[in-house]
Amino acid sequence: MADYRAPLVDMRFVREEVFQAEQEWQAMPATVDFNAELADAVLEEAARLAEAELFPLNPRGDAEGCVMSGGAVTTPGGFRQAFVEMARGGWCGLGGNPAYGGQGLPKLLTQAFDELLYASNTGFALYLALNNGAGLLLDAYADDAVKSRYLPRLYAGDWLGTMCLTEPHCGTDLGLIRTRAVPNDNGRYAVTGSKIWITGGEHDLTENIVHLVLAKLPDAPSGAKGISLFLVPKRRVLDDGSLGEPNGVICGGLEHKMGIKGSATCVMHFEGAEGILIGEPHQGLAAMFTMMNYERLSIGIQGLGLGDVAYQSAIAFARERRQSRAPGAAAEPDQAADPILVHPDVRRMALNARAWNEGGRLFAAFVARELDRAKYHPDDQVRGEAGDLVALLTPVAKAFLTDRGFATTVEAQQVYGGSGYCVEWGAEQFVRDARIAMIYEGTNGIQAMDLIGRKLTRNQGAYVERLAERVRADLDDDDIDTPELRPFREALESELTRLERVSDAVIEAARANAAAPGAAAHDYLHLLGYAVYTWMWWKASRAAQRGLAQQGPSGDDFYRAKLIVGHHFLTRQLPHVEALERQIAAGPSGLMALDASYF
Amino acid sequence: MADYRAPLVDMRFVREEVFQAEQEWQAMPATVDFNAELADAVLEEAARLAEAELFPLNPRGDAEGCVMSGGAVTTPGGFRQAFVEMARGGWCGLGGNPAYGGQGLPKLLTQAFDELLYASNTGFALYLALNNGAGLLLDAYADDAVKSRYLPRLYAGDWLGTMCLTEPHCGTDLGLIRTRAVPNDNGRYAVTGSKIWITGGEHDLTENIVHLVLAKLPDAPSGAKGISLFLVPKRRVLDDGSLGEPNGVICGGLEHKMGIKGSATCVMHFEGAEGILIGEPHQGLAAMFTMMNYERLSIGIQGLGLGDVAYQSAIAFARERRQSRAPGAAAEPDQAADPILVHPDVRRMALNARAWNEGGRLFAAFVARELDRAKYHPDDQVRGEAGDLVALLTPVAKAFLTDRGFATTVEAQQVYGGSGYCVEWGAEQFVRDARIAMIYEGTNGIQAMDLIGRKLTRNQGAYVERLAERVRADLDDDDIDTPELRPFREALESELTRLERVSDAVIEAARANAAAPGAAAHDYLHLLGYAVYTWMWWKASRAAQRGLAQQGPSGDDFYRAKLIVGHHFLTRQLPHVEALERQIAAGPSGLMALDASYF
Repeated sequence: MADYRAPLVDMRFVREEVFQAEQEWQAMPATVDFNAELADAVLEEAARLAEAELFPLNPRGDAEGCVMSGGAVTTPGGFRQAFVEMARGGWCGLGGNPAYGGQGLPKLLTQAFDELLYASNTGFALYLALNNGAGLLLDAYADDAVKSRYLPRLYAGDWLGTMCLTEPHCGTDLGLIRTRAVPNDNGRYAVTGSKIWITGGEHDLTENIVHLVLAKLPDAPSGAKGISLFLVPKRRVLDDGSLGEPNGVICGGLEHKMGIKGSATCVMHFEGAEGILIGEPHQGLAAMFTMMNYERLSIGIQGLGLGDVAYQSAIAFARERRQSRAPGAAAEPDQAADPILVHPDVRRMALNARAWNEGGRLFAAFVARELDRAKYHPDDQVRGEAGDLVALLTPVAKAFLTDRGFATTVEAQQVYGGSGYCVEWGAEQFVRDARIAMIYEGTNGIQAMDLIGRKLTRNQGAYVERLAERVRADLDDDDIDTPELRPFREALESELTRLERVSDAVIEAARANAAAPGAAAHDYLHLLGYAVYTWMWWKASRAAQRGLAQQGPSGDDFYRAKLIVGHHFLTRQLPHVEALERQIAAGPSGLMALDASYF
Repeated sequence: MADYRAPLVDMRFVREEVFQAEQEWQAMPATVDFNAELADAVLEEAARLAEAELFPLNPRGDAEGCVMSGGAVTTPGGFRQAFVEMARGGWCGLGGNPAYGGQGLPKLLTQAFDELLYASNTGFALYLALNNGAGLLLDAYADDAVKSRYLPRLYAGDWLGTMCLTEPHCGTDLGLIRTRAVPNDNGRYAVTGSKIWITGGEHDLTENIVHLVLAKLPDAPSGAKGISLFLVPKRRVLDDGSLGEPNGVICGGLEHKMGIKGSATCVMHFEGAEGILIGEPHQGLAAMFTMMNYERLSIGIQGLGLGDVAYQSAIAFARERRQSRAPGAAAEPDQAADPILVHPDVRRMALNARAWNEGGRLFAAFVARELDRAKYHPDDQVRGEAGDLVALLTPVAKAFLTDRGFATTVEAQQVYGGSGYCVEWGAEQFVRDARIAMIYEGTNGIQAMDLIGRKLTRNQGAYVERLAERVRADLDDDDIDTPELRPFREALESELTRLERVSDAVIEAARANAAAPGAAAHDYLHLLGYAVYTWMWWKASRAAQRGLAQQGPSGDDFYRAKLIVGHHFLTRQLPHVEALERQIAAGPSGLMALDASYF
């Protein structure tokens, strides 16, 4: 199995040369202490962890999986030791609120850390991903007493957080949940019900687990408006912060899954467990969305990370494996055959992976930067605008990054030929681990409905217009014009026009037919994804050209490769956007024509 | 887990109403005994086997896999019993030569049987698939003594055949093989070498295993022109047909694979094993291609079968699972939520699956019909023309059916949401089992190179012109014109023009640049696939319209659904062909621009 190498050079290019992180951080009081050197230092140390500690554990996590015995769950060999080391190193509180012991790193930096984690060991990464989201939620919604008691422990990795939404009969449709919370006489609540698919619901990494649980109060209105949120620890936390008795939180079993086998996916039973109400009664879903939106970008980055490690491993194979000859003349005539990387079709697959991975890295960084602005920027207008963009792009980040990431792992596996199907080479694990990302945290179909419903038609395209303004401002500021850059500009102008045209059409169609948004949703999300990636590649092409002109830090070969990969995106991936527009135009009638009984 | 139901109604529609099988069979002396009733009877009995015997064993095959102990391989529980039952029923010799105990069924019929096998239990089906190909090869190339001794036993399922090509250092590039065959003094050969990825190399289904092995004679020319083919039984076969001693054929291990775990994928060592030369010395590759071409269509049908069973199981889930409400108004207001099949995005996924599965069934039947014509038709010209079409379409059948089949299993899994990722529901096994089909029997990239090299540029487009003539003849014969059918005709005319335009351009580009064919290969294969499916859907639309006008046997609802699914193909899948044309036009320069060290 090939090594994993953290893509630090590309990450630095994206962060500093495309998104001017240092300048960005100087503009916001909360991030003024961060600079390029500090970012490099953090990611270099993170890279060491990912490459040397987590990646070697990845196949073991898959082979051993999590094991349940007598209600206790054991994580795969090496996981606990690696987790303890990471917790000691402060890696559980990177993005946490400094007022409670977090390190307050900007998202633009922590999202890069997330990529390294997911790439090197997705099964392991998920424990931290959930914990980060739980910390974010509590920081936003809990009162100071709860924050003081819980956040430092979550940030320290003494305890880990979970997110408990789904029940056997409902996942997407949370209005149907049956878990109940009844007030105790001590101001707390007795929570009773069963949840499924709980990542890290039970494990041996920490001495306590902090569950964030959706449940209904006795007087709850029906449906999604009647859901409240509770903090329910596995073991009760006493007033002095020490652990008390078990709290009636029982792991009922582990799911047997296609992949992410190192991640404990649990059935959880809450049996009158004592819970603390977080936020207002019946307002739990809004609070939970703070966490879900965090996880959605995080899961998008899972797709990206797995796409990159799959690419790296396929290339290592393609350098070693010799079959047949390069077109025209042998590349290495003294050998019996050439390495398969000489073949145009292998290069096509490799460049597809590069185009999507590097585009995805730009996109994830962009969304992260806007998240930082939305949270930290002193200017209300900037914060508001960034918040709109984040709202619009969160479902795209989740769904488009994971759809493309999965496709990339599949194509990387294809490079291997038969070895790609054999467990020992590792390529097939990346595929299995990537597959879940299109499903959990709201299926990609649900993301598409969120985008076309809440984020497009509900506001009559206001968020898309916000995005278009930003793109136009970029185009107006464009001060480099070379023959090599011109196709990027032309593509961006064309995709911007298309996005606005299609958005208007979708909004119009939604007025006439209730089925129209659902019929367009999937293709519209992808069309928006292509448009945004075209923007990202336009930005990257400018930065690469600047780098070439000014002897930038990434080196000429890097910049030239960047332009080649960008051109590949334009010529060999972007054309599909045309089809998406035509499919959207087909409307809902064909989808709804067939009676349910004829499926 | 849902049931599997053999798609007998659609199979009959394809066979009788689209391809007029009965008429076809009457025109060829070798198939004159077959008719619609006999075909129905065969497939009804096959359906019973697939539904009631093989499908229930499918998850067990995955969970237990094959196990090796002391050199012996045990197949999953139930496999042996099911195999013995099938063998007794005569199912191993369906397509075999009647002169040696086979049943001589036309391919148009056996390919439908293949679909049922793959759909219900791919891991099991593979043992028979290899055996069928081995029988075909021996029937074409072995002398009468070998045929008399071996074919009746393979057709009876007493013994099973394998195909031994790949070695650890070479799969695609067979010129590199190292297995050697040295003449014995008895007219036979001592075969020595190691082969990997041998499907059914060792197992407990039969008392003997007949390996067809590629090896080099001592005086062999180097490269692919120096390969010979040998029949090497696991146990020697004495002159009276009884089994002698073990023959120096050792199973060295089983591969641990992503899927098809019920299929024993073996490392095989031949240690001076006695082999019989099949065909001429150094001409083994041509003989092996008889088997490989058989297997390529067979593996294409694996993609189709898995796509269909995945669709069926997703629909069963979508009928039961209730989440949210239909767009506009609740479909079942007395229930807490509607079945998810009401949602346009779920229907989109379901109709995608239908469009590809039903299109694939038409295509597989078409190729099978041409295979029958190439083999049995009394008219030389018809045989020759059919042979050209089969040559052109075999790589498309292998690669396009499996690419689309895999994508269909992934989309079907998506319908399930989180349940799709959990082993107990079965959806994820279909994905894992389908993934290999894009890889083995020559990766889909190799299929694309075969298409664009041997089948397109080498003959300057002659096969494509043959295909175009057939399409044009169909268009000229077209005697139904309704508003509903017009889009099918327009699409076919347009795709035919596109195919000819792009084929000419590819042939032209190949003259100028040795890398051009490889750069275009993948997209060209898919473009040709879209064109042929458009033709198939055009044919199906005519048959459905005829059925509606003449109260055909499939029923009005069936015909109407067929037209709806066909329209879905035209409006929501076919648009991507445009992108393929543009990607082909991008040429090889972008793919070859990046130095190998910058991957």
